[in-house]
Amino acid sequence: MSLSMYQASVPVFVRALGNLRHVFQKGEAHAKSKNVTDEVLLQTRLIPDMLPLVKQVQIACDMAARGAARLAGAEPKSFEDNETTLAQVYARIDAAIEYVKSFKPEQIDGSEAREVHMKTRNGEVTLSGQDYLLGFTLPNLFFHCTTAYNLFRGMGVEIGKSDFIGSP
Amino acid sequence: MSLSMYQASVPVFVRALGNLRHVFQKGEAHAKSKNVTDEVLLQTRLIPDMLPLVKQVQIACDMAARGAARLAGAEPKSFEDNETTLAQVYARIDAAIEYVKSFKPEQIDGSEAREVHMKTRNGEVTLSGQDYLLGFTLPNLFFHCTTAYNLFRGMGVEIGKSDFIGSP
Repeated sequence: MSLSMYQASVPVFVRALGNLRHVFQKGEAHAKSKNVTDEVLLQTRLIPDMLPLVKQVQIACDMAARGAARLAGAEPKSFEDNETTLAQVYARIDAAIEYVKSFKPEQIDGSEAREVHMKTRNGEVTLSGQDYLLGFTLPNLFFHCTTAYNLFRGMGVEIGKSDFIGSP
Repeated sequence: MSLSMYQASVPVFVRALGNLRHVFQKGEAHAKSKNVTDEVLLQTRLIPDMLPLVKQVQIACDMAARGAARLAGAEPKSFEDNETTLAQVYARIDAAIEYVKSFKPEQIDGSEAREVHMKTRNGEVTLSGQDYLLGFTLPNLFFHCTTAYNLFRGMGVEIGKSDFIGSP
């Protein structure tokens, strides 16, 4: 027995984004009770030279969507980064989840050694599917979901780690 | 082809803790330049009702150490949570890495369906090895490593995401 690449990617991505959505919903209730507008909320940063909340959710969605596509050997779908309201953020998360779920196990299974090419600030990088998933996509996905959580937590939103982890 | 449970756990845990150690080293240089003592640094919190920095690193180490042990069907080694200096934090991380590395592929491979029992606030929980790794251990490990990173980031430490991700 072993894990398939599909099992270690798609359901994990879907759960992480679903939990992120749940954290946003708790944050929304808090922001509304304080009369904080969506625009202000989504521009919250931990420190001025860090990316704002809206960028955390955009990157988290991209990590999942690009992760599934690249493992499947497909060209990743591009999403516009233009959300200014929470309704648009939920739509973005929902679209990413739907896109990730559109990949079938037979497209992703066996991608351990498939070459994944990515453009980064330091030029093009080539990784095996396994290194891409375990060493890049999952750490990045959880990094941005956690940073969104921490931004809400810092605002005083009453969330706990179980909101982030959800049910395995 | 597929991923073995060992490949999806031990090397991922070791890299996450190694990157966490690297982030702490950058944070240490910053704290020393500001004459912040280790004791004060390790008690930094994002907000008063959140766990301090030292607890983030303790839990990250526990997630990796317990993760490897439970997947291997072994009783997890207990570490004392008594670090008050950065030297002790590095020793804790090093001990956790050494412990995680002590598990061999043959102990962890095939643990997808192995029952893992955990005590939680809501009583005892039983998960399959696969759900324990993908739905509990990895999200928790990255959650606490990211929160430590965010605490340093909020202090103004000059770190970027590449310090967190490292080389896949």
